[in-house]
Amino acid sequence: MSLVVVGSVAYDGIETPHGKRDRILGGACTYIALSASYFTKTAIVAVVGDDFAGEDRSWLSEKGIELTGLEQVPGKTFFWSGVYSDDMNDRTTLRTDLNVFADFNPKLPAGYASRPYLFLGNIQPSLQRGVQQQMNGVRFVGGDTMNYWIHDTREELLATIRTWDFLLINDSEARMLSGEYNLRKAAKKILAMGPNTLVIKRGEHGAMLFREDALFMVPGYLLDDVFDPTGAGDCFAGGFVGYLAEKGFDLRNGHFDVQELHRAVIYGSVMGSFCCERFGVERFRDLTRKQIDQRFEEFRKFTAF
Amino acid sequence: MSLVVVGSVAYDGIETPHGKRDRILGGACTYIALSASYFTKTAIVAVVGDDFAGEDRSWLSEKGIELTGLEQVPGKTFFWSGVYSDDMNDRTTLRTDLNVFADFNPKLPAGYASRPYLFLGNIQPSLQRGVQQQMNGVRFVGGDTMNYWIHDTREELLATIRTWDFLLINDSEARMLSGEYNLRKAAKKILAMGPNTLVIKRGEHGAMLFREDALFMVPGYLLDDVFDPTGAGDCFAGGFVGYLAEKGFDLRNGHFDVQELHRAVIYGSVMGSFCCERFGVERFRDLTRKQIDQRFEEFRKFTAF
Repeated sequence: MSLVVVGSVAYDGIETPHGKRDRILGGACTYIALSASYFTKTAIVAVVGDDFAGEDRSWLSEKGIELTGLEQVPGKTFFWSGVYSDDMNDRTTLRTDLNVFADFNPKLPAGYASRPYLFLGNIQPSLQRGVQQQMNGVRFVGGDTMNYWIHDTREELLATIRTWDFLLINDSEARMLSGEYNLRKAAKKILAMGPNTLVIKRGEHGAMLFREDALFMVPGYLLDDVFDPTGAGDCFAGGFVGYLAEKGFDLRNGHFDVQELHRAVIYGSVMGSFCCERFGVERFRDLTRKQIDQRFEEFRKFTAF
Repeated sequence: MSLVVVGSVAYDGIETPHGKRDRILGGACTYIALSASYFTKTAIVAVVGDDFAGEDRSWLSEKGIELTGLEQVPGKTFFWSGVYSDDMNDRTTLRTDLNVFADFNPKLPAGYASRPYLFLGNIQPSLQRGVQQQMNGVRFVGGDTMNYWIHDTREELLATIRTWDFLLINDSEARMLSGEYNLRKAAKKILAMGPNTLVIKRGEHGAMLFREDALFMVPGYLLDDVFDPTGAGDCFAGGFVGYLAEKGFDLRNGHFDVQELHRAVIYGSVMGSFCCERFGVERFRDLTRKQIDQRFEEFRKFTAF
């Protein structure tokens, strides 16, 4: 069933030990939508400048992503550049030019409001809330956030996630949001903030899902080569929410097979792992659903006992 | 079937955010043997000084550990002390007094030589080799090592592990030994050094098992409180090797159920997790096999999909 994704569409400059790209398609919304599009009909809400390439628009459209909500305005598209450390566990931001993204005020196209699933990428919490209020009848809503919002707009963030079904963040964000280093304690506190489901991403160390009645953990996929980790967490999000949308999952009603939630975490991990195999979004140029399902089965094989 | 464990028996001074102990029973051999003793008949080879407490000897003996090979000599028992960082991911060694351990030259008591299983704890590689040569007809042999031996006695170490069935080390040791940061590549190189099975411990991030024909990964157990991580890796080793010995596993013949190896990694993880719940070896004072099997089932529950 149809999913709406809100967030940034950008151009990135990326340098890893495997090479360098000066300006390639990026942005959290791009990665989430590309990843989710393998599972479900996906529509985006984002803003780009008049420098946004026609071929990028065409490609996203060919991937089946609905672009009615991709607003194009005068000015330049959000640009970010960074360089990764040798082991790729750290990255240094070289440039962040918000450009047209600085004034992003997401407006839902008429047809989007009744879509059943909403994923709010990492943007200002009040904007996330504004989008949610434009929707009616969502079967679940959730999203991501980051250290900046946790620290600087905490009350706004808490008011926003209070009505979310799930929150999907990384381990350091979970620690910061909860004030607890221990992730089991952190999860308990975060679940008390509103979301019934918390997914904590741990990069190469895998991911965890917490609910009051459930705990699920999966190790990270072991790649032969990590080419570029940019976007891997967003691709995880896309796989997680995309799979749930494909299954017509209703997180609100509570009568569901919790194993399906576990499988959504595995599909998230699968999509995150594929993302790292090439620069930027390049892996999605020829990735097939068959390869995705094969890697899902690989996860089963190397975690079964 | 009967297991022989070689390594250090020591006294430790430990400080963690949860408290402090000035002098408690410790040492890799102690942890490995205590952990393995829940699965199989375990005998140790180690040396202590004349300050070694009768009550510690009695307790180990009551736990069913055979102490014929625990040599007591004039002088002081190996003493180590250290303090953990607030998040317990780092520790600073305050004191290392090798004492009688400096001249440790492990000699197998007559009855040990024909035992089927041998675990060589982290001591000088040439000593590990010397012990192995005193055994006849082992069904499998393997062990641990550390950064110091990898760096300073590399050739000796390589000659030693060449005939081992398994090597059980942590991720930074695997990277150092192989010269590869990527663990999949590191594992490939290490398997070419001799052992048919490699287990890489990753602390709170779990563990991995590599063979030419197999890969298995498990996330770390999520404790509510890590009291003291000292000895957790050794308890992992004890659970892993203890379970294989209990099952009468023959790593050399190659005709076995690889799922049993996976389960051995889970039992290792279970034992490592229990170890962290109290200071030093204290958790083993009342730990039962039933609790161990319950946690094994818990692992199944939170990793199944």
